Amino acid sequence: MVFPDIPGYQSLLCDLHTHSVFSDGSVWPDIRVREALKDGLDVLSLTEHLEYQPHADDIPHPDRNRSYELAREMAAEELLIVHGSEVTRGMPPGHLNAIFITDANRLLVDDVTEALREAKRQGAFIFWNHPHSTGHQADGIARLTDMHRDLIADGLLNGIEVINDLTYSDEALQIALDHNLTILGTSDIHGLVDWRYEIPAGGHRPISIVFATERTESALREALFAGRTIGWSQDLLVGKAELLSQLASASLSTVAVNWMGRILELEITNNSSALYLLRNLSDETFHDSGDLVTLPPLSTTHLRLKVGNKEPPLEMEFEILNAIAAPRTHPRFHLHIPAPLPAAIP
Amino acid sequence: MVFPDIPGYQSLLCDLHTHSVFSDGSVWPDIRVREALKDGLDVLSLTEHLEYQPHADDIPHPDRNRSYELAREMAAEELLIVHGSEVTRGMPPGHLNAIFITDANRLLVDDVTEALREAKRQGAFIFWNHPHSTGHQADGIARLTDMHRDLIADGLLNGIEVINDLTYSDEALQIALDHNLTILGTSDIHGLVDWRYEIPAGGHRPISIVFATERTESALREALFAGRTIGWSQDLLVGKAELLSQLASASLSTVAVNWMGRILELEITNNSSALYLLRNLSDETFHDSGDLVTLPPLSTTHLRLKVGNKEPPLEMEFEILNAIAAPRTHPRFHLHIPAPLPAAIP
Amino acid sequence: MVFPDIPGYQSLLCDLHTHSVFSDGSVWPDIRVREALKDGLDVLSLTEHLEYQPHADDIPHPDRNRSYELAREMAAEELLIVHGSEVTRGMPPGHLNAIFITDANRLLVDDVTEALREAKRQGAFIFWNHPHSTGHQADGIARLTDMHRDLIADGLLNGIEVINDLTYSDEALQIALDHNLTILGTSDIHGLVDWRYEIPAGGHRPISIVFATERTESALREALFAGRTIGWSQDLLVGKAELLSQLASASLSTVAVNWMGRILELEITNNSSALYLLRNLSDETFHDSGDLVTLPPLSTTHLRLKVGNKEPPLEMEFEILNAIAAPRTHPRFHLHIPAPLPAAIP
Amino acid sequence: MVFPDIPGYQSLLCDLHTHSVFSDGSVWPDIRVREALKDGLDVLSLTEHLEYQPHADDIPHPDRNRSYELAREMAAEELLIVHGSEVTRGMPPGHLNAIFITDANRLLVDDVTEALREAKRQGAFIFWNHPHSTGHQADGIARLTDMHRDLIADGLLNGIEVINDLTYSDEALQIALDHNLTILGTSDIHGLVDWRYEIPAGGHRPISIVFATERTESALREALFAGRTIGWSQDLLVGKAELLSQLASASLSTVAVNWMGRILELEITNNSSALYLLRNLSDETFHDSGDLVTLPPLSTTHLRLKVGNKEPPLEMEFEILNAIAAPRTHPRFHLHIPAPLPAAIP
Repeated sequence: MVFPDIPGYQSLLCDLHTHSVFSDGSVWPDIRVREALKDGLDVLSLTEHLEYQPHADDIPHPDRNRSYELAREMAAEELLIVHGSEVTRGMPPGHLNAIFITDANRLLVDDVTEALREAKRQGAFIFWNHPHSTGHQADGIARLTDMHRDLIADGLLNGIEVINDLTYSDEALQIALDHNLTILGTSDIHGLVDWRYEIPAGGHRPISIVFATERTESALREALFAGRTIGWSQDLLVGKAELLSQLASASLSTVAVNWMGRILELEITNNSSALYLLRNLSDETFHDSGDLVTLPPLSTTHLRLKVGNKEPPLEMEFEILNAIAAPRTHPRFHLHIPAPLPAAIP
Repeated sequence: MVFPDIPGYQSLLCDLHTHSVFSDGSVWPDIRVREALKDGLDVLSLTEHLEYQPHADDIPHPDRNRSYELAREMAAEELLIVHGSEVTRGMPPGHLNAIFITDANRLLVDDVTEALREAKRQGAFIFWNHPHSTGHQADGIARLTDMHRDLIADGLLNGIEVINDLTYSDEALQIALDHNLTILGTSDIHGLVDWRYEIPAGGHRPISIVFATERTESALREALFAGRTIGWSQDLLVGKAELLSQLASASLSTVAVNWMGRILELEITNNSSALYLLRNLSDETFHDSGDLVTLPPLSTTHLRLKVGNKEPPLEMEFEILNAIAAPRTHPRFHLHIPAPLPAAIP
Repeated sequence: MVFPDIPGYQSLLCDLHTHSVFSDGSVWPDIRVREALKDGLDVLSLTEHLEYQPHADDIPHPDRNRSYELAREMAAEELLIVHGSEVTRGMPPGHLNAIFITDANRLLVDDVTEALREAKRQGAFIFWNHPHSTGHQADGIARLTDMHRDLIADGLLNGIEVINDLTYSDEALQIALDHNLTILGTSDIHGLVDWRYEIPAGGHRPISIVFATERTESALREALFAGRTIGWSQDLLVGKAELLSQLASASLSTVAVNWMGRILELEITNNSSALYLLRNLSDETFHDSGDLVTLPPLSTTHLRLKVGNKEPPLEMEFEILNAIAAPRTHPRFHLHIPAPLPAAIP
Repeated sequence: MVFPDIPGYQSLLCDLHTHSVFSDGSVWPDIRVREALKDGLDVLSLTEHLEYQPHADDIPHPDRNRSYELAREMAAEELLIVHGSEVTRGMPPGHLNAIFITDANRLLVDDVTEALREAKRQGAFIFWNHPHSTGHQADGIARLTDMHRDLIADGLLNGIEVINDLTYSDEALQIALDHNLTILGTSDIHGLVDWRYEIPAGGHRPISIVFATERTESALREALFAGRTIGWSQDLLVGKAELLSQLASASLSTVAVNWMGRILELEITNNSSALYLLRNLSDETFHDSGDLVTLPPLSTTHLRLKVGNKEPPLEMEFEILNAIAAPRTHPRFHLHIPAPLPAAIP
């Protein structure tokens, strides 16, 4: 997985919700680290359930920091392991991940609000996991309760998963927008990433792309609290319109290689792992396609633009159909069409 | 290439514009026939240039019906060879294909209108080739001339290519709509179909899907004059909204296999070679994706629908983003969501 | 992985040497079971190191039967889990797997011979693991010690790995032949099978194919003591000549579909997952190849045989170049060439 | 298709037997040129049948040099077009290709010996096509007639196809060896190379690799008369033992990257498009495999060699199982195992 940086920020690829044998996962933490390196992640968090320990007969260890410590020890320098835990309760409030904590054991208290306050004291960023899970809402529609409103008011709920594993929720996105919660995508992987997301066939795990001033834990934390994130799952990008627009601009670059009459031959390179599915909103039309333009990941697409009497450089406007800034709302961005290369045949 | 029939009509897959060594192509007609059979075509026309014969030094044969006769002889019963020729002039009127002719030699007259009248007398369906070719319009914008208006008025111009080889033209489509010309897509292949359209990598040649009452030449001709066609190139389907909608309905079928809470698990099968890229216009949202739904060709996609309090069967409405009924206008269709299978877990 | 049965016996696909987090592996036993089902195994044994427990800080459980019990519980009916343990000592005797045991805890005694005697009392089949490991022999040459000779004499050593993970040993095979030890191939997997053996790219794990009278634990045990096994790794099959010959005969079947002059057109189907690389030892020659014939796994190969004046049915003899019956010795088998089909053109 | 040069000679990849529409082929000569460039050929000859002209009704041109002239005109500088024709008679002598001729028209005489004498006067190298064709020998067994012996004695038969299209003949090879005829492999393509040899799936057309002092027509001719050729089809290489051995040595290079105990880790690179299937004849054994070693085309294979007390550099000897120097006889070659890299861990 590869994404370019955007102006002012590094793009950190993060999976902030995963499990190992230290809660209900099926792998030792070393596999999580190796999967993450193989997938090109920058940041990984093993967020074991605090209150759900189905392997307790075999792994009775009382230290809930163990999974983090093993992963950190195994991680090469290029992978940042963030210390996290999953507070695992019925509704409300359901499941919440607290990351950037310092001692998971101290979150093991009966009162959930008290557990979250302790996490907060440790410096945690707290987000609501799969609010649209059928285990919590039989109809799969994410809904805020009074308790969630209180947590938000008290700074004890800072983000929300709009993407969890193979699910996405328009309603969770609306909650994020209404309450200024940070938009997140996570895998919540329990088994093997390769099997679940069909990595050998070209699939990818769901992640959050976090735009941080640098590649450090403190910058990551600042970015998460500031809400500079995009969730990415399958072909879907979800986030604030401005960030989606900036990521598209950073990912797509155009060279005008030649004239064919008054048709300008373009090479548009997508240097990200995300597909871009665009709708042309500009007056100019293409010689190759209608208003729909597909730019596959990590590849160069040739398009011929009918510029008529206009002289490049030009700015074209597109709607990003596979990106979502709000339910049923797709962001726009501008694609710069440069002047033709000097060698272009006039 | 496989497409289902639509109610009342068979879907005939046609390439009505190709060349062999008998004009400026690079293969003997037998290769055209074998390519067509390999590609799953129902109908093929070898439309040699009447006035452009670059191989004349080697193939001086005066009989312009020869290519058709060789192809017909070689074609197996499952491939219909339509007798055609390309009237090849400068603008106006440019290049026009006359198909369903009986003697190409008699079209070899100086006056182009007279050539077309002769074709008409033979029963021809006549269409305008690549009106957006930069050879004819330097800016690639298809434009009607007075001569074309006259030909249309006289019944000497019945269709228009909106897709030719790897090009598409919004402006040609607008001409088709404004003047009730039949919408066509053709390959205009000169070299090898496998190379040009990357068949081994999963590509396909541009074709016209013609909706005919039966699989005969006369039914094909009737359908072409009646304008019952869709052009298909790459991921793009172009035609009248009603036909695009009917083809989508025929191509996509849904089974409701299970309940997960109040979420209904669907299996949507696309039994056509075309991708469908849909936008959900209904109130219900999906548990897997935003409003964009991608249904790859010849495959089954699993989707989970949040039906809330509604009880299936339901009708959902979608916009077909990769289909074009008019410039920047995408047709809609209804997808039937049936009642769950009896075995579905309540 | 698919292999046909041979006359009188079922072909059981067995991996009798694997690890989980209960010794030094990286996965919970459920992943081992799911990998085995995905790979098409009939039999799996989780053979945790008795004396090597690097995860003891986290999994201090004293019951060494736990891994077996968890796997058996998770295994579907179609996967047979064999109870085993790896006795893990320095040289001699190195590492030995005891399978078909009933209580692994009772093997935890200081004296290795006593441990093996206890295994024997429980009914164990005992085999020597990776005798060619550089950890045990710096030059990678498997060598028998006096202690091994004693164990063999006392019935405490019944088999030997000639294939372990990605290694094979000619010298281990010679020991097997000299001392009538059962020939085995195992994966000894610690991490993920998919990664180690590149399963998505068409690879397979090393296994033993065991020829048993039925698909039960007792029949498997009888077959192992009787030495009815073939080790399979990459393209290599290793075992007794007679078994290799029978497996080839069962895997390869021929139909004579047509005459072309006096050349007989054959379709040879390989219905096993193993490649067959054959050398023709018969007088007849092929119209397609020299004396080397390659029959890819699970596919049908067309060959044309120059039979001259002979009238089929014929028997042809081949050497199986990718099978090893003894160091540098390849078994032979007969391929039956049937009389041509009645429809064959004379 | 890529092959390295051998000491003293360049390896020219040649297809010296092909057809176009100018005899019984299905493509214009430009397609033959484009196929050849796509396939990486150095040399191409279009060898139209002199006496068999099924397209004569359409291409009545009397100049039999036309196909050569068109191809030469179309060929880029990197493709050498050799002027040739196929003398097409019943048995004896069957079909013979004369290449390096200057005027094909003058070979159109009734008496076949006189036609060959004319070719000889023009400087031709003459070879016997598919002597094992069932059209000429019902049993597919190549046999020399008295006429062939006379032609050889008179210098009118210089080479023989042991590979033609998808066929190979042990008996033709024996004739080549017995009578010192140059060994050749050709495609004899009539349709499309991509279809016939499944190029998109990784296949290749049959060719002759000719070892010439330089990349010129005269050097090619000298090499053909000198018999410096290898025929290559599918996985099969056929030629003189010395040339096969030299090509293997040039194609395979070894680096010793590391020690693992006394096991030396090797990287063997095959920089040719041919598979090498080797049998180890040396005392040393491998840690990865038995005596059979497979080196796929254009790839690097890792092998671990048990050198025991020996100190590299070493020479190892292998039999090349997929190469044929005489019927059922495989050439040998030496593989140089260098001293380990300085950085190798001792």
